[in-house]
Amino acid sequence: MKALEEKILKEGKVLPGNILKVGSFLNHQLDVDFIMEMGREIARLFENSGVTKILTIETSGIAIAVGAAAAMHIPVVFAKKNKTSNISGDVYKTVVHSYTHGTDYTVVVEKDYLKKGDNILIVDDFLANGKALAGLFDIISQSGASAAGAACAIEKGFQRGGDQLRAEGIRVESLAIIDSMEDGNIVFRAQ
Amino acid sequence: MKALEEKILKEGKVLPGNILKVGSFLNHQLDVDFIMEMGREIARLFENSGVTKILTIETSGIAIAVGAAAAMHIPVVFAKKNKTSNISGDVYKTVVHSYTHGTDYTVVVEKDYLKKGDNILIVDDFLANGKALAGLFDIISQSGASAAGAACAIEKGFQRGGDQLRAEGIRVESLAIIDSMEDGNIVFRAQ
Repeated sequence: MKALEEKILKEGKVLPGNILKVGSFLNHQLDVDFIMEMGREIARLFENSGVTKILTIETSGIAIAVGAAAAMHIPVVFAKKNKTSNISGDVYKTVVHSYTHGTDYTVVVEKDYLKKGDNILIVDDFLANGKALAGLFDIISQSGASAAGAACAIEKGFQRGGDQLRAEGIRVESLAIIDSMEDGNIVFRAQ
Repeated sequence: MKALEEKILKEGKVLPGNILKVGSFLNHQLDVDFIMEMGREIARLFENSGVTKILTIETSGIAIAVGAAAAMHIPVVFAKKNKTSNISGDVYKTVVHSYTHGTDYTVVVEKDYLKKGDNILIVDDFLANGKALAGLFDIISQSGASAAGAACAIEKGFQRGGDQLRAEGIRVESLAIIDSMEDGNIVFRAQ
């Protein structure tokens, strides 16, 4: 999505540790008109996929998931993160390792909100090593629903998570894929 | 907003401790078409107020803030919660006491995203004792921006936070106000 690549070049900041800061429009301040536009693009990419529900993960996946769901007229479920595994209630849960923070966290979704017969699209803001996405696919699998694939705003292609999922036969669409950002020089993958 | 009152009666569950569970549409699963409708109602209520930006707080305020901002074509900033006060960087911050969890947490917003000259509307999903809203008003005050008021989906009127803010001259609009929910019997305030 050319408009997203241009916005990353204009507003993004590359910080040490391969961190891309896009807090001006995607995950602290939200450029809502632009997020709704990204949502319409995700809806277009998956328009013939029979998606019945979107699954995302708190916090920064929620806005773009709402944008896509508004265009598709379907509900969103956001998975909740917990630092402990001490969770009660009737939930699907999985453990995700965060490389960024060096910790494990448990991700939960109440069983009432994912059912067999649903066809779930995962939507998130960032895709890097793919561990969060893999956790969400595990939750979908536990629920008996089917998975239509995953859509992300920005993929860090050089961290390989997206390509590993694609190699497993999963449909993964990213609106912009960054293949390198050495010395602050952002190079996008041609799509 | 009659449609919200009907949805609360149909889908809400009253749990011990005056907890109203609305996870089926507002804060775990998101009924996005309905959230966009609530957003349009918030936009209508504040249409002549010159609002330039919406401020909300993670996590469950984000969806309805995006709904309102999509209708008003303005950005959202979501304040971030931290359990420690050990925060670096150039941020506005304030401490909020959570009665629900019995703990204090620090709320931060990067200074880049709130400026003098902005006229800010606070949007959140729930209003109970009003401590989170008071913290957000404190952050607006630190930034030098003006505050247009606050809009919430569901106000627990019996916890008085909304009426205390109104008594201070602040405009607070809630799409549904619950005046009591004893024995699971939900009574709305006439608006």
